[in-house]
Amino acid sequence: MECVVMAGDHNGAAPMNDEIAHGVAHGEPSILVFDVNETLIDFESMNPLFQRVFGDARVMREWLGHLFMYSMTITAAGLYEQFFTLGQGLLRMLGDIHGVKVTDSDTEQIRRGMLTMPAHPDVEVGLTRLADAGFRLVTLTNSPLDPGGRSPLEHAGLAHFFERQFSVDAVRAYKPAPRAYHLVTQSLRVPPASCFMVAAHLWDTMGAQSCGYTAGLITRPGNALLPVESLPRPNLVASDLPGLADQLIRFRR
Amino acid sequence: MECVVMAGDHNGAAPMNDEIAHGVAHGEPSILVFDVNETLIDFESMNPLFQRVFGDARVMREWLGHLFMYSMTITAAGLYEQFFTLGQGLLRMLGDIHGVKVTDSDTEQIRRGMLTMPAHPDVEVGLTRLADAGFRLVTLTNSPLDPGGRSPLEHAGLAHFFERQFSVDAVRAYKPAPRAYHLVTQSLRVPPASCFMVAAHLWDTMGAQSCGYTAGLITRPGNALLPVESLPRPNLVASDLPGLADQLIRFRR
Repeated sequence: MECVVMAGDHNGAAPMNDEIAHGVAHGEPSILVFDVNETLIDFESMNPLFQRVFGDARVMREWLGHLFMYSMTITAAGLYEQFFTLGQGLLRMLGDIHGVKVTDSDTEQIRRGMLTMPAHPDVEVGLTRLADAGFRLVTLTNSPLDPGGRSPLEHAGLAHFFERQFSVDAVRAYKPAPRAYHLVTQSLRVPPASCFMVAAHLWDTMGAQSCGYTAGLITRPGNALLPVESLPRPNLVASDLPGLADQLIRFRR
Repeated sequence: MECVVMAGDHNGAAPMNDEIAHGVAHGEPSILVFDVNETLIDFESMNPLFQRVFGDARVMREWLGHLFMYSMTITAAGLYEQFFTLGQGLLRMLGDIHGVKVTDSDTEQIRRGMLTMPAHPDVEVGLTRLADAGFRLVTLTNSPLDPGGRSPLEHAGLAHFFERQFSVDAVRAYKPAPRAYHLVTQSLRVPPASCFMVAAHLWDTMGAQSCGYTAGLITRPGNALLPVESLPRPNLVASDLPGLADQLIRFRR
């Protein structure tokens, strides 16, 4: 699936196809800001852990939903705790909810899992295409960087594509808090309109757009558009990164 | 299950049982602020709708998780849309994710469902006990008030227990954003320490505590504590409202 939506379409019932993508048609954006978790690397690789502990691999999605929700919760409340520690606590919380024993070995395994997820198979092709087209590539992730070893991106063999890696850990506020996105633009000393967020999560594209970025959604399994007219829709939508890359390259010309 | 946790225990690995509940032992709190959805009224009443549309009642929990997460998302992004409209859009989003057709009749039914959920069976007994003990009772809900008819609380036959009903709609910011909790204390002209949040969701107790409230968690099915030492735990925990009422009455003396 590929479709294009008008940028800044916060109010209208714009058609989801065959529109020129405003904001990506005038030489901008020049900088692509990539989310990492699920966008570039594959959370489904942790399914066997959830199958083993809970007897049901679908609990992975439940855990991931809680992980995003509680990262937003603590940010709204003005608190902070690192992503992996939060993920480990939530695994224990889900154990209580499902009446399943979660051991120290399980929580250690999920921490290791979050650090060592493989790249989605379409990612290398897409990143190569975008780098060749002259885009500057950076990342902005909810995960802390380099916690005593290689980052998730290094583990996945993708780090060499990016000129900078940013983590929300530097501002102690999770996406979609504005100061996460502003961290990137302020650090690079560029205006938000130069930046295009690439994410598999709509909450990430909405946050970026609210800070003046344009944004594209990769509709990986479990992700879709939210048809509420008053809320921003992604400027571009594709089912994989090469598809999004082709749109970006086409509309930028 | 009943257990009591020290108030303000943000850092220690405090035992979860047999502790005196600080902050509820000195004549305070005098005002109990009740969450409504799931805390007082029963979302499981919408299971048949999800069974019919998705062939799986468990999709209700997935929808509810998305509803909370996207209410936090739009608040973080500085945006706002009413709770029921968001819920209707998310039903369509889940239809796309699951490859299921969601009709206008389905979205109208979920709006009606959100307005007309029944009270949990333990609630009337618990509220009566707390009112008799002299607590002032108010509500603070993510739902808009009285959208052209009776509020969810009136439908559930519970409205007469409360001296005031507050909605986040008045501040266009969803819980756990601080200005939702501050709406109550500022409107009542009381300090946060006079207020005790009663909720079935940990993200709600965490938000309230971060604003200076004390708070109690009702661990209805699907809800549990989050064992992360740096994050606030509820001051009181019980599996139903009468259990929480008994603790509040005991510790306030």
